[in-house]
Amino acid sequence: MKRSDLTHLNCSVARALDVVGEWWSLLVVRDVAYGRHRFGQIQESLGIAPNILSDRLTALVGGGVLDRVPDPDDGRAVRYELTAKGADLVPVLLALMAWGDRWESPDGPPLRLVDADGRTVEPALVDRRTGDPLDLEALRLRRGPGYRDGP
Amino acid sequence: MKRSDLTHLNCSVARALDVVGEWWSLLVVRDVAYGRHRFGQIQESLGIAPNILSDRLTALVGGGVLDRVPDPDDGRAVRYELTAKGADLVPVLLALMAWGDRWESPDGPPLRLVDADGRTVEPALVDRRTGDPLDLEALRLRRGPGYRDGP
Repeated sequence: MKRSDLTHLNCSVARALDVVGEWWSLLVVRDVAYGRHRFGQIQESLGIAPNILSDRLTALVGGGVLDRVPDPDDGRAVRYELTAKGADLVPVLLALMAWGDRWESPDGPPLRLVDADGRTVEPALVDRRTGDPLDLEALRLRRGPGYRDGP
Repeated sequence: MKRSDLTHLNCSVARALDVVGEWWSLLVVRDVAYGRHRFGQIQESLGIAPNILSDRLTALVGGGVLDRVPDPDDGRAVRYELTAKGADLVPVLLALMAWGDRWESPDGPPLRLVDADGRTVEPALVDRRTGDPLDLEALRLRRGPGYRDGP
């Protein structure tokens, strides 16, 4: 399907998907976050055609999610690094991972998260103000400062 | 781009994207979560062609994310409702919304989350065991019970 511009939708979910919702893009971000920084490593991991990966990388660099930097070990090669904006997608990856673990992993989670001490970490969403678990059923949306009328 | 099967990738992020990563699908889930339950409401919200929306809805029903139920107000019409699996995608939407608010909302967040008392809610990720904010830099991945060797 042709990708069209979602930014007219008055919603940060739509704007986020406009940058990262391209189907392969979050998996590319995942790979770089996992430590795959070279084109060949990412291509091998995802098993996609080089021209498609090249397009996705260009879009992610253009969207400010990845930086393309010279490889310190081989000045003619490049590495892809997460920008601060890209690193800030890790919570999105964690949310998708948790959902896939719960609903699409009949044999149990393929991977588990651990902290620096090797202890299993289970991410949970809380209200930052109170520290209480979010009551998702009770959440409502109100207009924010960036709300605009119409498209 | 043709959608191919991601489930061979040994990762819950990939499996989650295989179900919900279709480009429009998360926005459809968002719309139903926001209270748009009829085909026409979702189509008006997203501004996409009916045949494309119909395909996405069929895929989401097939993936167990949405239920298609008779409309109590009009027995000939149908409503789309989130299943438990679909409602469990709300944290993914919240993570995308937070990211879009931070990085793609130059005029400020278009919408804000409030709790039942109208107080602004800011979702935060913590380690469920300790209640401490997640140290994303320190997170590592280990093989889980569902890990398989090879593709």
